[in-house]
Amino acid sequence: MRVLKEENSPDIKSYLMEKKAIVDKALYDYFPESADIEPDIIKAMQYSLFAGGKRLRPILCMAGAAAVGGGESDVIPIACALELIHTYSLIHDDLPSMDNDDLRRGKPSSHKVFGEAVAILAGDGLLTEAFSIMTVPGITERILPESLIQVINLIADAAGFRGMVGGQVIDVQSEGKPVDISIVEVMHKRKTGALITASVLSGAIIGGGDKSRIEAIAEYGNKVGLLFQISDDILDIEGDSRVMGKKAGADREKKKNTYPALLGLKKSKQIRTKLLDEAIESLQNFDEKAWPLRRIARYIIERKK
Amino acid sequence: MRVLKEENSPDIKSYLMEKKAIVDKALYDYFPESADIEPDIIKAMQYSLFAGGKRLRPILCMAGAAAVGGGESDVIPIACALELIHTYSLIHDDLPSMDNDDLRRGKPSSHKVFGEAVAILAGDGLLTEAFSIMTVPGITERILPESLIQVINLIADAAGFRGMVGGQVIDVQSEGKPVDISIVEVMHKRKTGALITASVLSGAIIGGGDKSRIEAIAEYGNKVGLLFQISDDILDIEGDSRVMGKKAGADREKKKNTYPALLGLKKSKQIRTKLLDEAIESLQNFDEKAWPLRRIARYIIERKK
Repeated sequence: MRVLKEENSPDIKSYLMEKKAIVDKALYDYFPESADIEPDIIKAMQYSLFAGGKRLRPILCMAGAAAVGGGESDVIPIACALELIHTYSLIHDDLPSMDNDDLRRGKPSSHKVFGEAVAILAGDGLLTEAFSIMTVPGITERILPESLIQVINLIADAAGFRGMVGGQVIDVQSEGKPVDISIVEVMHKRKTGALITASVLSGAIIGGGDKSRIEAIAEYGNKVGLLFQISDDILDIEGDSRVMGKKAGADREKKKNTYPALLGLKKSKQIRTKLLDEAIESLQNFDEKAWPLRRIARYIIERKK
Repeated sequence: MRVLKEENSPDIKSYLMEKKAIVDKALYDYFPESADIEPDIIKAMQYSLFAGGKRLRPILCMAGAAAVGGGESDVIPIACALELIHTYSLIHDDLPSMDNDDLRRGKPSSHKVFGEAVAILAGDGLLTEAFSIMTVPGITERILPESLIQVINLIADAAGFRGMVGGQVIDVQSEGKPVDISIVEVMHKRKTGALITASVLSGAIIGGGDKSRIEAIAEYGNKVGLLFQISDDILDIEGDSRVMGKKAGADREKKKNTYPALLGLKKSKQIRTKLLDEAIESLQNFDEKAWPLRRIARYIIERKK
C-alpha cells in the first residue's frame, strides 16, 4: 500500500488536469456556441459533452502516443473523437429502455432535459461526428493517411457490435438474470474495455510505435479496460454518491451482473490488483515516456468517481 | 408524359435489379449468419438490413462512379456502408419516441420484434459498422487513401447533425406545428437529401471525377435528394399501402409537414418536375456513361414504393 501511495504522487493529478484542459479546449473548438444549426441538437450534444467527464479515453490516447515517442498534439482529433463516442454511449445507456438513469455526473441525464427523441439523436449525432472529426480536411498533414484509416477501423470495431454495442446488449439482456463470471468478463471487455484499448492503441499507432510496442500497448489496454470496469463495479458499492455524481448502489438495485455481485468485494479487489500488476508488467520494455500510462493504471484503482 | 414513359424503358429496371443483387450479395458477405457474436444484435441488424430495401443509395454510389468513368466494383464497400447508415436511420426513426411506426417495408419494425433497447443498439451498431466497412484492412489497395478519407468525411457530415440527424430533429420537433415551406425544404434536404447527395458524390470522388464533374454531380445529388423526398410525400397520398409495405396517409395522420400538405398535390408535382429537369440538366456535359443517373432521376418520380 505504501508503494502505491508514493507512486500516486501529485504529478499524475497535474498531468491529468493539464491534459483534460487541452481536450476540453479542443472539444469546445469543435462545438462553438454559435454553430448555425438547429439549437436543440447542438445544445443536447454540448450538454452531455461538457457535463464534467474525466476525459480518460482522450488522455489515454495522448499518453499512448507519448509512450512510443510520438507527438501528443497530433492525436488530438482522434482523442476528441473517442470522447464523443464515449459520450454518445452514456446518453444511449441512460435511456428509459436501457438503464433508465435519471442522473449522470450529478446532472439530469440527456433524455430528462431534452426528451427521449432528441437524446437518441444527440447520441447519434455525437457518434457520427466522431468520424467527421477524424477525417476533417487537412488532417493528413499531421497523420499518415494509412495510419488514420487503420485507427478509424480500430475505433469503429471497438465501438460497434463486436465491442461496446455488443457489450451493452449483453448488459441489457442479462440484467436480473444470474450469469457466469466469464460472461461478465466478456461483457466488461466489450462494453468498456474495447474502447479503452482502442484509445491507447490509436495513440500508439499514430505515434509511430513499432509492432512489438503496439502489441504491448494492446496488452496494457486490455488489462486496463477490465481494471476500469471492475473498479467501477467496486466504486458503485464503496463510493460516495455526492463525489460520483450518481447514486451509489445502483448496480445492486438493478441486479446488474458485476464482479462484486458474483465474486464478492474481496475477490474482486484481488483480481483488480492482479490486473494492475499485469498492466504495468506489459510496459516493462518502455522507458520513462510511458510513465503516464503506468500512473493512469494506478489512478483508475484509486479514483473516487 | 409520352417522352417520360419511353425513356423509362425496361433497361433501367434491369439495371436496378442487377445492381441491387450485387449490393445484396455484398451485404450478406458482411453479415454472415454464422457470425460468432451475441445472436440478438446480429439478428436485429440483419432483420432490418434484409427487409427488402431498394438499395437506392448504394446504386447511386455505383452509378456516380460509372458516370465519371470509374470502376463500380471499387466503390462497393462505400455503397454498402451507405445502406447501413440508411438502415440505421430507419430503425431509429421508427422508435416510439420518434415516428412510432409499427410497420416498415411491410414487416413489424425493429423495436416491435426485438424491443426498444436492442432496436436502438442495432441502429447504433449499423451506423458504427458503416465506418468499419469503409476502413476495412486492404481497402486502400483499391481506393486512394486520400479519396477514402475525403469520402468518409463527406458521408459522416451528411449523416450527422449537419445533415440527416439534424433533419430528423426538425421533423420530430415540427410535427403537428405549422411551419413555412422553406423549413420543410431544409428538413427534406437534410433528412433525406444529404445522404443521397453523399452517395452519388462519394462514387464520383472514388471514381476519379475532376473538379467540374464533382460539382455537377453534387448539383445532381441536391436536386435528386429533394426530388426523392417530395416524391415520398406524394406517394404517401397517392400510393398503395400494399405495394409500399407501409400505411398510406400516415403523414397526414401524424400532421407531418410535407410538400403536398403545405402546397397541395398539383404544386408539389410541378416542383418535382422542375427538379427532375434540373437534375438531368446538371449532367449535360456527361456522356452516355451517366445514363443510369439520368434514368434513376426519372425512376424516383415513377416508383410505386
